[in-house]
Amino acid sequence: MPSRSRNARRRRRIGVADTTFARWDMGRSVVKELEDRAGDFEVVRTTVPGIKDLPVACKRLIEEKGCDIVVACGYVGGEPIDRECANVADHALQGAQLMTNTPILGVFVYETEAKDERELAMLCDRRAREHAANAWRMLFKPEELAAMAGTGQRQGFEDAGPIRVDLRERRARRE
Amino acid sequence: MPSRSRNARRRRRIGVADTTFARWDMGRSVVKELEDRAGDFEVVRTTVPGIKDLPVACKRLIEEKGCDIVVACGYVGGEPIDRECANVADHALQGAQLMTNTPILGVFVYETEAKDERELAMLCDRRAREHAANAWRMLFKPEELAAMAGTGQRQGFEDAGPIRVDLRERRARRE
Amino acid sequence: MPSRSRNARRRRRIGVADTTFARWDMGRSVVKELEDRAGDFEVVRTTVPGIKDLPVACKRLIEEKGCDIVVACGYVGGEPIDRECANVADHALQGAQLMTNTPILGVFVYETEAKDERELAMLCDRRAREHAANAWRMLFKPEELAAMAGTGQRQGFEDAGPIRVDLRERRARRE
Amino acid sequence: MPSRSRNARRRRRIGVADTTFARWDMGRSVVKELEDRAGDFEVVRTTVPGIKDLPVACKRLIEEKGCDIVVACGYVGGEPIDRECANVADHALQGAQLMTNTPILGVFVYETEAKDERELAMLCDRRAREHAANAWRMLFKPEELAAMAGTGQRQGFEDAGPIRVDLRERRARRE
Amino acid sequence: MPSRSRNARRRRRIGVADTTFARWDMGRSVVKELEDRAGDFEVVRTTVPGIKDLPVACKRLIEEKGCDIVVACGYVGGEPIDRECANVADHALQGAQLMTNTPILGVFVYETEAKDERELAMLCDRRAREHAANAWRMLFKPEELAAMAGTGQRQGFEDAGPIRVDLRERRARRE
Repeated sequence: MPSRSRNARRRRRIGVADTTFARWDMGRSVVKELEDRAGDFEVVRTTVPGIKDLPVACKRLIEEKGCDIVVACGYVGGEPIDRECANVADHALQGAQLMTNTPILGVFVYETEAKDERELAMLCDRRAREHAANAWRMLFKPEELAAMAGTGQRQGFEDAGPIRVDLRERRARRE
Repeated sequence: MPSRSRNARRRRRIGVADTTFARWDMGRSVVKELEDRAGDFEVVRTTVPGIKDLPVACKRLIEEKGCDIVVACGYVGGEPIDRECANVADHALQGAQLMTNTPILGVFVYETEAKDERELAMLCDRRAREHAANAWRMLFKPEELAAMAGTGQRQGFEDAGPIRVDLRERRARRE
Repeated sequence: MPSRSRNARRRRRIGVADTTFARWDMGRSVVKELEDRAGDFEVVRTTVPGIKDLPVACKRLIEEKGCDIVVACGYVGGEPIDRECANVADHALQGAQLMTNTPILGVFVYETEAKDERELAMLCDRRAREHAANAWRMLFKPEELAAMAGTGQRQGFEDAGPIRVDLRERRARRE
Repeated sequence: MPSRSRNARRRRRIGVADTTFARWDMGRSVVKELEDRAGDFEVVRTTVPGIKDLPVACKRLIEEKGCDIVVACGYVGGEPIDRECANVADHALQGAQLMTNTPILGVFVYETEAKDERELAMLCDRRAREHAANAWRMLFKPEELAAMAGTGQRQGFEDAGPIRVDLRERRARRE
Repeated sequence: MPSRSRNARRRRRIGVADTTFARWDMGRSVVKELEDRAGDFEVVRTTVPGIKDLPVACKRLIEEKGCDIVVACGYVGGEPIDRECANVADHALQGAQLMTNTPILGVFVYETEAKDERELAMLCDRRAREHAANAWRMLFKPEELAAMAGTGQRQGFEDAGPIRVDLRERRARRE
């Protein structure tokens, strides 16, 4: 993992925020994924109680800790109220981004997405890692994202892939 | 497609933001549509992972890249959570517009709108193109939109058309 | 209709925003209603593609065109997604008002409110006109609105009217 | 009712906003309740068409008329769309409070809460009066509210009252 | 409980906001929990009528009373409208945090969560105390929260605990 000192002027900072509510250490998965990646950056991590505490924590990582991008890990329980909380947090994560002009990638895992605890752990880990990779790309390799436009990428489960049809014949008829 | 250099002072900029989540390259459809259109403008394109990453990306296209209008392409999967994400992004796209006094035309395609992959691709393409045309009109020919007020325009599927009834007789009776 | 020049210093401006999505020219209904009304004001009209394009358009009418009040005409289709779009736009119209301290009267007509196209047209026309009248009152005759407090006014369909019961007897018993 | 002149420097202002949509003059109930109460304050009242016009009206009462607190009276019709409108207004009333650091007490009455028109009128009147009393307490007697913390107060219908159980035994066991 | 005077320059302030609507004195539970905890801090408490009055009250505790963190206690009744009110308040609590860069821990208890009044009282008390402990940790011992990342902490009922599976074997296969 990159050192957290800020002696290099151009060193970028990636923030990671997660919760004590989560049943998997998603922040650690993000950090692990970033360890293997190149680039002059450091990681700043913070942990808050629950998903609704993430937005202001992310905003502070940006404004008070100088992060250039943040990965926000939210774990959503199985009750309807958990889903409502996630939705409230999600709206506020948008607000934090708009107020700072800085991307916050939300890694939300819903307990109901997985069939058992093993799959749930796998999902938390993979989704966190794949969003971490995206955060890294947004900072260092935006052209990699541009090359993936419209290709049906997914985080956690399998990619959906692009639709493979040829519209030219159809358009020719239309025109 | 217009050159991306900014040597002309009055050259307008149209932003295009899309996602790697989408299963069709909607941003490319927007760019293709704009290529055929007149006017001194250039296109600035960016690609982000998912629909919830669009709002801050659009705001940055406006504030950091000088775009005068943005077309934001969002592809919405078939699960309830996808729809919720789209709704969150939609609210934030409104916030980005109000904070910048700049229009962002949202091109949202819902996977559930189409009966098969071919129709889905067609819908992505046409809706993206028709919104691109509207963005162009808002910059260069607002009078064309004024002339279409209340005419039941739709993007992607067939237009609904205006209601053709004559209320004068009725109002005469009322007054 | 009042002239659109702004040579009089105290001339008020009423903005009108509508859409090409609507199947009735609601903006025209607003303008027609205002034509018959007294007062030193002019109308500034703009047309955008859909209901979600109204909020920023209204904010610009206020901040860039100097409007003192705006009537925003939104036509809502019959699908659930149309209703969601209207809700998103509605929230943003509130944001635009709070950011500008200027009223925006929303004229929303839901396609599902009417039993046929004739009633739908009538509803679009009447609701637009009655909101236009309210906008005019807010600028020139707020005392008329004060006199109607709690009287069950409705726009488009028949008024509900005030509840006519006398609570004094009841309160006397309570006290 | 206190005089509306502002010749005393420390005179507080209580704003009252209501609608022509309401079927009961809730603003009048607020004013009546305040008339009987002590303190150096005056009332500033405004009436707007509907519930969604309240937030900006309240914000203007605060910022343009110098109100220290506002009571916003909203009457909600019986259709689902009425409830949606109330929700939109409610969110914006929150925005107005956060932007001004000034409390706005929302008095919302839902037509569906009452079994007949008489009960509806009673509910409008009592809820408006009880919120008016709270506004007055917030300005002049916050210690009265502090003394009622956790006591199950309700506005309009009967109070729920506090839960009367003794947790000490239980906690003793836990610790 | 720490003294409320502010003669020490570095003394931190913890705000506590609760309601007269609640049927349990949740604010008192927060204060009791904080009494037993070390650190140079004082408590500032305020009580408002209902849950929708909390956001601006919390913002004022931060901006006008200098609080470094706030615990907001909301009690949610059993009707659908109560849940809607809680949701409105919840969104605004996010807004207050983002506008102040200061955490507000929401302690929301839903009447429907408990099977009887005794359990409800217990839940109000424990959840308030556990959030109070988290507020204290965020100010004085953030490393304790960091150590609990991903461990399934809950407030009020039993903790869910971490998922205990070993993904290494699986990942080895994947890679």
